[in-house]
Amino acid sequence: MFYTQPLAKLIDEFQKFPGVGPKSAQRMAFFVLNLPYNEVTSLARSIVECKEKVKPCQNCFYLSALNPCEICANLRREVKSLCVVADSKDVIALEKTREFRGLYHVLNGLISPLANIGPENLKIHELINRVSNGSVEEIILAINPTIEGDTTVLYLNKLLKHLNLKITRIAFGLPVGSDLELADDITLVRALEGRREVV
Amino acid sequence: MFYTQPLAKLIDEFQKFPGVGPKSAQRMAFFVLNLPYNEVTSLARSIVECKEKVKPCQNCFYLSALNPCEICANLRREVKSLCVVADSKDVIALEKTREFRGLYHVLNGLISPLANIGPENLKIHELINRVSNGSVEEIILAINPTIEGDTTVLYLNKLLKHLNLKITRIAFGLPVGSDLELADDITLVRALEGRREVV
Repeated sequence: MFYTQPLAKLIDEFQKFPGVGPKSAQRMAFFVLNLPYNEVTSLARSIVECKEKVKPCQNCFYLSALNPCEICANLRREVKSLCVVADSKDVIALEKTREFRGLYHVLNGLISPLANIGPENLKIHELINRVSNGSVEEIILAINPTIEGDTTVLYLNKLLKHLNLKITRIAFGLPVGSDLELADDITLVRALEGRREVV
Repeated sequence: MFYTQPLAKLIDEFQKFPGVGPKSAQRMAFFVLNLPYNEVTSLARSIVECKEKVKPCQNCFYLSALNPCEICANLRREVKSLCVVADSKDVIALEKTREFRGLYHVLNGLISPLANIGPENLKIHELINRVSNGSVEEIILAINPTIEGDTTVLYLNKLLKHLNLKITRIAFGLPVGSDLELADDITLVRALEGRREVV
């Protein structure tokens, strides 16, 4: 083919990345070829080190190099609010807002019969254990408004409601800065359902 | 910050790639975290191996794991046509067309006074040496229509014209499938200049 063998292999590996097509993969591989040797080995080391060192926190399952993770170990976080998310990426999105001061629990996915993911594949048992110790007052479900998300919320609500906790779900509606005219039907329905009194 | 240290470092490294912003870099780093360990080490190995094995061919300076490269070593290529390009990526673009059967010469850049790149920084001396042995009949300059490209073409033409060779440059004009109405002025001027009799 057009590429010399080690280059073809690297382009192939880069193409497996999400959102990277053949053109971007080629560009990335040539970028590597043009880097100084020590930067190339440093990149390779970072990749392996990241995989080796970053593991799910044994408490909240957020991916971290520390165990317990930076958030669980932070004594200034409020233990009374527990935010349940599907994925570590969701924790990062929420942390970027600097709004939430409680702790997290990463489920590691959502219930999806189609993908053969049941409650037993998620960190739900571990969530129940964490909540049972009594320090949590509110569970905030920060879970996507998808079929899988709604299913998981229903399941969690059924499981948790007898525990005498406040269980909330983040609001869905129009994104700030967007246009009502352009919103899809389901978002508008959710926005109407979630309406609040103007004070 | 939001990222645990080894993850932050990897996201940082990925952000140096061309066309990769903070969001893509995060997506790529999480993709690495979710890969099985053996695939992560294989990716890291491919990166280092590619850098270690792929070097400029000592004849044409095309990046290859072989020396001489696959193209120079192919006895079925026509030695009488030599295509001069700025970069190895240009060789790949031309090879993909399966049209050109001659050999290549990679200059490793273009003359650019602004970037402090003069003829002595390019593989021009080596080009003269290759051409001097007499087997080349036509030099095809496949060089971008930019200020740097035009400067390099002028320089090469002055240097090579006494050698009694055919020197050509690839055509510039409307890309196939494009619309005359939308073409920019300079492209149209080039297209007019390059007009050919309809036969």
